[in-house]
Amino acid sequence: MSRYSPSVAKLISELGKLPGVGHKSAQRLAFHILAMPEEEVKTLADALMTARTSTKLCAICQNFTDQDPCPICSDPKRDHSTICVVENPRDVATMERMRDYNGLYHVLHGVYSPLNNVGLDEIKIRELITRLQTSTETKEVIIATNQTAEGEATAMYLARLIKPAGIKVTRIASGLPMGSDLEYADDVTLSKAMQARHEF
Amino acid sequence: MSRYSPSVAKLISELGKLPGVGHKSAQRLAFHILAMPEEEVKTLADALMTARTSTKLCAICQNFTDQDPCPICSDPKRDHSTICVVENPRDVATMERMRDYNGLYHVLHGVYSPLNNVGLDEIKIRELITRLQTSTETKEVIIATNQTAEGEATAMYLARLIKPAGIKVTRIASGLPMGSDLEYADDVTLSKAMQARHEF
Repeated sequence: MSRYSPSVAKLISELGKLPGVGHKSAQRLAFHILAMPEEEVKTLADALMTARTSTKLCAICQNFTDQDPCPICSDPKRDHSTICVVENPRDVATMERMRDYNGLYHVLHGVYSPLNNVGLDEIKIRELITRLQTSTETKEVIIATNQTAEGEATAMYLARLIKPAGIKVTRIASGLPMGSDLEYADDVTLSKAMQARHEF
Repeated sequence: MSRYSPSVAKLISELGKLPGVGHKSAQRLAFHILAMPEEEVKTLADALMTARTSTKLCAICQNFTDQDPCPICSDPKRDHSTICVVENPRDVATMERMRDYNGLYHVLHGVYSPLNNVGLDEIKIRELITRLQTSTETKEVIIATNQTAEGEATAMYLARLIKPAGIKVTRIASGLPMGSDLEYADDVTLSKAMQARHEF
């Protein structure tokens, strides 16, 4: 005899497919959901479907949006001469939280990672190149992919691809995080921070 | 301008209501869901609703089930003279995993916890008493509530309530976990283990 009824087993298995949700967490979530009022479960299920069906990719920047072009791309008050290239939509949210950047974005939806079977065609590089070719406004592309081997490789590849078009390509700085101790910095970060030192 | 479209904001807020899902995890889950194929999101949403709507409480043991009485209560091969009282349906799954216990269960759906506003009427105690009064089969009630202040208080209360009916009431043992070091045991566990010592 199975330990769970078929519908509960199915729910646990579906929840377990979400990132960061192991079998134990899936069980805990499932039992919480079974104990929730039915309207609340319906609200959650509807929120899932509504978000998924009403969300598309902005034709310009490839960010998730429910209007196309997205509010950022269609905002005349933003600086349309600068494009910040990020790995995923969460990064746009992070940058926007900073309230310091007023340019546009381009979301790659991944990073070049041959070890994980993510080739250059799997991420939105072609869309970026087409965008740069069709619009003549762009003066600078800031590459803000993560400071990982894959992020660095993608940044390097993009720089080589875009620079010949006469567009300025920059990379966000890496270095010691604010408030951190030199003593606890890893070697790569420290070496990067030394290379990127600047005069007072 | 909000950082997220309304449907995405709604999804993040609904996911954030689940236990153990903070705002950051809710964001991560939401963006994962937006990137999932639409059929998979539908499967997940359907699994939520199906599990919730097809699951009810077994009229006998109060465990979640999609048939009433549940497969355990209606299994003639189980020992119907023993009832193990647990706090929640997860505990039944845990006990069943052990494959050592062949009696029935009674799920309280909580534990007496006045500090958290859970009174004696909020948990399935009345159902247990009615069950013991209507069926004459029960010879032993094993109380397997957690080894917490609330679990102990509930166990004590149940014992006082059931014993006068001439039914044997036992409590699962507390003591040092197998494979653990005496050195790292907390005082309460150690004192319980000493009290419950047995002869070779």
